[in-house]
Amino acid sequence: MPRYQWISFLTDYGHDDVYVGVCHGVIARAAPHVRIIDVCHTVPAGSVAAGARLLAKAVPHLPDCVLLAVVDPGVGTDRRPIAVQAGDCVLVGPDNGLLLPAAEALGGIRRVRELTSHKPPESATFHGRDVFAPVAAELALGMDPTLLGPPVPVDSLVRLPTPRVKITPEAIVGEVALVDSFGNLQTTVVGDASAMPVGAKVMLMFGGRRRVAYVGRTFSDVPTGKLVIYVDSAGYLAVAVNGGNAAQKLGVTAGTEITVRRDAALARRP
Amino acid sequence: MPRYQWISFLTDYGHDDVYVGVCHGVIARAAPHVRIIDVCHTVPAGSVAAGARLLAKAVPHLPDCVLLAVVDPGVGTDRRPIAVQAGDCVLVGPDNGLLLPAAEALGGIRRVRELTSHKPPESATFHGRDVFAPVAAELALGMDPTLLGPPVPVDSLVRLPTPRVKITPEAIVGEVALVDSFGNLQTTVVGDASAMPVGAKVMLMFGGRRRVAYVGRTFSDVPTGKLVIYVDSAGYLAVAVNGGNAAQKLGVTAGTEITVRRDAALARRP
Amino acid sequence: MPRYQWISFLTDYGHDDVYVGVCHGVIARAAPHVRIIDVCHTVPAGSVAAGARLLAKAVPHLPDCVLLAVVDPGVGTDRRPIAVQAGDCVLVGPDNGLLLPAAEALGGIRRVRELTSHKPPESATFHGRDVFAPVAAELALGMDPTLLGPPVPVDSLVRLPTPRVKITPEAIVGEVALVDSFGNLQTTVVGDASAMPVGAKVMLMFGGRRRVAYVGRTFSDVPTGKLVIYVDSAGYLAVAVNGGNAAQKLGVTAGTEITVRRDAALARRP
Repeated sequence: MPRYQWISFLTDYGHDDVYVGVCHGVIARAAPHVRIIDVCHTVPAGSVAAGARLLAKAVPHLPDCVLLAVVDPGVGTDRRPIAVQAGDCVLVGPDNGLLLPAAEALGGIRRVRELTSHKPPESATFHGRDVFAPVAAELALGMDPTLLGPPVPVDSLVRLPTPRVKITPEAIVGEVALVDSFGNLQTTVVGDASAMPVGAKVMLMFGGRRRVAYVGRTFSDVPTGKLVIYVDSAGYLAVAVNGGNAAQKLGVTAGTEITVRRDAALARRP
Repeated sequence: MPRYQWISFLTDYGHDDVYVGVCHGVIARAAPHVRIIDVCHTVPAGSVAAGARLLAKAVPHLPDCVLLAVVDPGVGTDRRPIAVQAGDCVLVGPDNGLLLPAAEALGGIRRVRELTSHKPPESATFHGRDVFAPVAAELALGMDPTLLGPPVPVDSLVRLPTPRVKITPEAIVGEVALVDSFGNLQTTVVGDASAMPVGAKVMLMFGGRRRVAYVGRTFSDVPTGKLVIYVDSAGYLAVAVNGGNAAQKLGVTAGTEITVRRDAALARRP
Repeated sequence: MPRYQWISFLTDYGHDDVYVGVCHGVIARAAPHVRIIDVCHTVPAGSVAAGARLLAKAVPHLPDCVLLAVVDPGVGTDRRPIAVQAGDCVLVGPDNGLLLPAAEALGGIRRVRELTSHKPPESATFHGRDVFAPVAAELALGMDPTLLGPPVPVDSLVRLPTPRVKITPEAIVGEVALVDSFGNLQTTVVGDASAMPVGAKVMLMFGGRRRVAYVGRTFSDVPTGKLVIYVDSAGYLAVAVNGGNAAQKLGVTAGTEITVRRDAALARRP
């Protein structure tokens, strides 16, 4: 009897070629009962950190599933393909740090296997098709993860550097981790709504420039066109323009360091 | 027994984050039998009018379903979340005008409920995840809409302004409502193919400029590279370049006023 | 009993309008059992050659299915709508060359029918909705293809020109056929990995410029930022930048002629 009805699928493949569709086809052939949730396929190309964060944001809302995640700039090298059991899910992808924040969001890593039992990949550049999707399909069908390959010690897994965050009484220093389709800037800083009085004025500093923003719970808490700083739906500090695109307005992209100053002199209602 | 097999889903979330995937996950957890039709997720950010029109274009071709539609620049404010029964469908989304053209395309509004029975949203910025998708899943499972919350008088619903259209014997004045991936310009003017002899020359005026176009039933009715004016598949007057991109060629975006002059002197075959 | 569980779907409709969603709706209404694999919907607008190649790349990995493919710049003219039986699949789309490389990848054309039995299309510009999706749904339900319309002689089918390729002892001349979301350049030249020693230096010439590249099996076989030439996952010669975007770096788009010189003087390890 199949073990998983769902495979959730995240990659940096983009939509301009057939890579995503081909992986859907591979799964449909091997495990026709599976239903696929396309979590995101426009992770910035090769950005393992962005992929890891997007996956971790999504997993609390997904059904029990195999999580097939491929952001794999080292494809075809000796980086290990792995399967990570966490919560009631199994995460399948490269051992480059991509899977671990999601595994932690699922309650922590239970067991890890290196993938060695699959057929040798036909291609050195498309292991999504040749390795990861076939293994995900096998797991959905009920394959025992211990048959995938040898166990991997958890402390041997590749980990991403901890995101840059510094908090002092005067300022919060973080980094723009993600920019969404609205142009909202999601930082590396976990937010604390209770410390942020709605309407308070703060100063944003980035790339040698500075801008005033106002604390809000949501976009419309500030006038149209103004910058709002808020705790986003994943719990991070984020910056948006009400009715506009903050990334465009500020010329900020992922990776930019951003400082939020909140000294008393600024903490007045607009 | 489930009431709806399908949820049709339209948003302005874009594809650069996991918002769409997360809503799929929420629905999969709550109502695993549901199949989702992704109608469109690249409604221009915050453009309720574009979303309303896109939804209305799609509904005549969808199966009986819950229509989950979220273009919601007022998320987290006191704008009402609503469910609108129309035809054999239920539309779920914000009370900002988004749902009404689609409800009319389905035969008109039957009943409206404000959504008050759901769990309080965790986030003030992602009610797609916290309010609308859970309610859509409940409705698909068979929940009686009267349990969602209090009835809403139809005349209290927020309505979008009527699209700008003016028709005189000499000219048609409308607006570019949508630009698709081909760069075709879809106007606010309902077309009348019988009044448009194929091959007739017309003058287009927009943003202080003017261009000649020819009436066609389809793109290839004019030479490659030429402008064609036609009644599109949703029944609106539209302008395209045969083999090209009209929006790029003319530098026109949604919202541009466009005038079609059709005086006798111009009505000759090219 | 339904004949096909799957419809695989490729178009140039893009994601900025509801065209893809509407076709999903049409299929859901007519053949609710069908599951759709979205192979790609961002074929460059009107590019039949790109669509044909993308479809042919995908089909070896898809389940038995109806292949619904619409890249149709001649929509509404007298170009024939056809259904092509190949392998255990049926391909449905316009007779403009789009379907034939995929049919060959499936083992060759068995039979072709012109589509004449369907309802007259409502629109002259959206035969995906009005002709091709309905026919694909009928075929999935089990309709006998001979009922679709009269047989079409295979030698009367429209064929695309053979891709430009010239191979001499000194050089390979081809064309960039596709650019994917990574900016990788896929050429029209079928690759031969055995003739390409990893690390060998080659010269790329395009648009009057020249650049050094190194042979690799995968991206990381060259240093970060360097050009790698490799046989891609579909078997074609391709050019990438390790950790970068070759299309942007070289300013190359689909259609550019590209020459690979491999004279002995260059064939040394970097």
